[in-house]
Amino acid sequence: MKNLLSHIHSPIDLRKLAKEDLPQVAQELREFIIDIVSTKEGHLGASLGVVELTIALHYVFDTPNDLLVWDVGHQAYGHKILTERREIFHTNRRKNGVSGFPKRDESVYDTFGVGHSSTAISAALGMAIASKLQNDFTKQHIAVVGDASIASGMAFEAMNHAGVTDTNILIILNDNAIGIDPSVGALKMYLTNVKKGTEKQDNIFEALNFDYSGPIDGHDIFAVVAELERLKTIKGPKFLHVITTKGKGLQKAEEDQVKYHAPGKFDKITGELTPKDTTHLPPKFQDVFGHTIVELANENEKIVGITPAMPTGSSLKFMMEAIPNRAFDVGIAEQHAVTLAAGMATQGLIPFCNVYSTFLQRAYDQVIHDVALQNLPVIFCLDRAGLVGQDGATHHGVFDLAYLRCIPNLIIFAPLHEVSLRNIMYTAQLGLEHPIAIRYPRGRGMLTDWKQPFEKIEIGKGRCIKEGTHIAILSIGHIGVAAIEAVKEFDLSKRIALYDMQFVKPLDETLLHKIFSKFDTIVTLENGVINGGFGTAIIEFASEFNYRTNIYVRGVPDEFIEHGTVEELHEQCGISKNVIKELLLSLLSN
Amino acid sequence: MKNLLSHIHSPIDLRKLAKEDLPQVAQELREFIIDIVSTKEGHLGASLGVVELTIALHYVFDTPNDLLVWDVGHQAYGHKILTERREIFHTNRRKNGVSGFPKRDESVYDTFGVGHSSTAISAALGMAIASKLQNDFTKQHIAVVGDASIASGMAFEAMNHAGVTDTNILIILNDNAIGIDPSVGALKMYLTNVKKGTEKQDNIFEALNFDYSGPIDGHDIFAVVAELERLKTIKGPKFLHVITTKGKGLQKAEEDQVKYHAPGKFDKITGELTPKDTTHLPPKFQDVFGHTIVELANENEKIVGITPAMPTGSSLKFMMEAIPNRAFDVGIAEQHAVTLAAGMATQGLIPFCNVYSTFLQRAYDQVIHDVALQNLPVIFCLDRAGLVGQDGATHHGVFDLAYLRCIPNLIIFAPLHEVSLRNIMYTAQLGLEHPIAIRYPRGRGMLTDWKQPFEKIEIGKGRCIKEGTHIAILSIGHIGVAAIEAVKEFDLSKRIALYDMQFVKPLDETLLHKIFSKFDTIVTLENGVINGGFGTAIIEFASEFNYRTNIYVRGVPDEFIEHGTVEELHEQCGISKNVIKELLLSLLSN
Repeated sequence: MKNLLSHIHSPIDLRKLAKEDLPQVAQELREFIIDIVSTKEGHLGASLGVVELTIALHYVFDTPNDLLVWDVGHQAYGHKILTERREIFHTNRRKNGVSGFPKRDESVYDTFGVGHSSTAISAALGMAIASKLQNDFTKQHIAVVGDASIASGMAFEAMNHAGVTDTNILIILNDNAIGIDPSVGALKMYLTNVKKGTEKQDNIFEALNFDYSGPIDGHDIFAVVAELERLKTIKGPKFLHVITTKGKGLQKAEEDQVKYHAPGKFDKITGELTPKDTTHLPPKFQDVFGHTIVELANENEKIVGITPAMPTGSSLKFMMEAIPNRAFDVGIAEQHAVTLAAGMATQGLIPFCNVYSTFLQRAYDQVIHDVALQNLPVIFCLDRAGLVGQDGATHHGVFDLAYLRCIPNLIIFAPLHEVSLRNIMYTAQLGLEHPIAIRYPRGRGMLTDWKQPFEKIEIGKGRCIKEGTHIAILSIGHIGVAAIEAVKEFDLSKRIALYDMQFVKPLDETLLHKIFSKFDTIVTLENGVINGGFGTAIIEFASEFNYRTNIYVRGVPDEFIEHGTVEELHEQCGISKNVIKELLLSLLSN
Repeated sequence: MKNLLSHIHSPIDLRKLAKEDLPQVAQELREFIIDIVSTKEGHLGASLGVVELTIALHYVFDTPNDLLVWDVGHQAYGHKILTERREIFHTNRRKNGVSGFPKRDESVYDTFGVGHSSTAISAALGMAIASKLQNDFTKQHIAVVGDASIASGMAFEAMNHAGVTDTNILIILNDNAIGIDPSVGALKMYLTNVKKGTEKQDNIFEALNFDYSGPIDGHDIFAVVAELERLKTIKGPKFLHVITTKGKGLQKAEEDQVKYHAPGKFDKITGELTPKDTTHLPPKFQDVFGHTIVELANENEKIVGITPAMPTGSSLKFMMEAIPNRAFDVGIAEQHAVTLAAGMATQGLIPFCNVYSTFLQRAYDQVIHDVALQNLPVIFCLDRAGLVGQDGATHHGVFDLAYLRCIPNLIIFAPLHEVSLRNIMYTAQLGLEHPIAIRYPRGRGMLTDWKQPFEKIEIGKGRCIKEGTHIAILSIGHIGVAAIEAVKEFDLSKRIALYDMQFVKPLDETLLHKIFSKFDTIVTLENGVINGGFGTAIIEFASEFNYRTNIYVRGVPDEFIEHGTVEELHEQCGISKNVIKELLLSLLSN
């Protein structure tokens, strides 16, 4: 049988095919995705689940004139492959390669850049209103949203608006009952009842004034095409409920949907994961968090854990398994997660609220207004802080130090290594007078022997890691390891002092006075934006106390950093071991 | 008839009364509120609308053991008066007086501090979960939420979670079809249909797994008491739909609900507003914005205006009246508002997205992820930036410069006066290569003759207002007027140079090099937090280029500032004319 996919450069080619050819295209597209992801890694399950839907959308609608917005974008691999990027798709998520998410710079078919959830309806509605104002009454505007994402508040806000417009917006609910982890909440229960046929009375989407249709089988490509063709002719806000299976077509991916969300390398025929020997590696910070919270919560019954839809990614799942009544996955609901924690704290509970750094941006107001203003001792654990690597610009957790540092009452800590993370968690649950944000990176730390007895950390105290004579490096968090390693390899290492400042707020002013009195040259190092971050705090200190020291601030520059390996991005931003070494050499040679 | 209210110190006294006495209490409470607000000013309509509900809640439930959370808090005056604060209520919103919002520091009856909308369900759920974990299965947890607030995404997130818990949470929807301005959106249409009886089929709240009851007449105190008594005995998540009239009991307030949200002084019998002669005053920045966007939009058909539920407060209402198809009130939905604007910008529209500075915190992620990352030229108009006065800590727009400054691609501008605001709006709609945030304060400017012909502003350029010899004051935005006036009154004014920097980002580095080369002493002045703000940007510049100048940063210190008049708060924070004058005197005498 002739291969069809290899002749599809763009949806124009797809639309030339007979409807009867589409199942074959689906088969080939699925194999293509599996083929690439099995060796190049990336997100798998979501894209496999929407193969038929993706083909049907580009077949029925006149993309890119009709505007198609994918929510989150994990599911958009098929879309990318069908829209002029098949031949470069093997560069997915590599530096200078294809982005792992839809991205406007990359293609006219990527109408809106995504990464964070629940933005698609707002964006598509904005486009739909624009079309109307431009007197284009035929153009279609389509948002494809998963059932986990549509339960997030922002999606509700957009539906609340869209429902009272007369725009040509079509919301497609891709209902597979799972985000990265299984979906939760009352809406999920409602959708389950709709699918089972036990919910016949209430229709939330009709109540919100949408022309609702479905549920239909999202893997029956003829059914999907037929329904999209029908919807294309209907004006006004429409809502199509499509049932799909995440990981569809690869048995193991269907069976373990969480693991195969982003499985790493695997055998493309059997689906077996390629084994990795990690026995001798240091643990992930995530696992240190997950095991430590269980350990602490077993002793302290006031401790509760909260995650907005990231039980696996954050490793809060360990607590959800061990102490299920005190560990909460609230869904993609960062705003609610934070204020829920605040409510709990008013009653004497000790909430650990674990949110990815980049997603805490979604709950910024709640951190200020509900937690810090009331000075409630919520413990924020900010996972994936700093540059995250292949997920790229949408996911780097680089703004947190800058946007948190201006909030009164808040303590900000970053652990150098696993033991610091454990000890600050221990310290925080002993009882603090303030909320605290603890930020740590994605991935592995540096200590294999991390499970040390707990020690209390004094709030607001930094520490000297290594004495030196000429230059002091002040670092915050795990990126300090780059400085430690740079100096280790260094002939003139006696000249370099290293300080792990630990707290961005409150600053250890006593230690800083000692450092500034001794050194004429100071280098600050952080895995976050320079503007307003840790280095800036040091500069503010120096200015306030009139120190004339030369301060070199190293961190992420004032631009959005794209995808690449963490190592590549550290190098690019000048916060890698090598670049630090070069800086020290040049400073010492002046 | 004996006055009852004067004998009610706390709900304990209220509960001693017979049910039959409650209408009289309602009458007296309503009069008490009108009496105070008519002379002391404050929020009126919302509290009048819930007089019966407030009394019924404290009568039926065992507050403060049962936990009552008011959403937003405009409606909580009756609650405050009934809970030990009747005698000090005349100090409402004054410095060191009662706060205009529930506040934990103020009373055990204020279980959760509010101000921003839609937090109550999350907070009450957090409390309810805490009770359950503490084995208290009888305690009730009640969130009172308006229909405008419940349409905001955060409330949906909380309901999505609450609906699948077995906690004793009672959500009371106070449905009066209005927030500050009339409610909008599909949910409002749905609720209207429920009230009319035309929506019989779909029940959104039952679909979300709540035990729904209502709608009931919220002014029939016996009906409300009876229903609350019934609900008190029911376990699990409950939802009560109550219909009320904002402004109830004062005819004029019922008739013009927008004006009587916070009417200023008025005649307590007739409701007539106390006339104010404002003819010779400079205009409000809000009105300059509102009139100017109409003026520009009449010429440029790409311009659209967006407000999240603040058409009157922001004065976007002028555009909504003049060009209704291009001006959008999207409800309390800041997240959606920002991403909607981004979607519009992708199609070539020029969106002015007007959000109060403090509420943009709700859309921080959308500013980063949907606008700045894609470098879409959305024009943010940040109203009520800086210290806002009597609304207090929840509403001060003091964090924006710090939290925006770290975002790549974003231009940040603050106008010194009305003409600057007009000119930057004019400049922005000519087409920028970046998004821009324009921040200006609440209230009146300085120029009565403000409607000058438009002039283009060069992006990134500051300007010298006044030359001087010894000290340079670098200000940003309207607070610069304090410096201008301080210097005017000053014998040594020749020694002081004044610069209106205009842009926080990009900084005018050319001008700064000139200033730093000339002056040994620099004072920076901003109406925002010191940590990470404008002054910090100047310090970063000085550090980068090794200037040894003494820099004195004046702005809002690192603490939450409570309520008071704007003048009192400027004085307190050291950014008033008087304090600046003192600083200059002391610097010159050194």
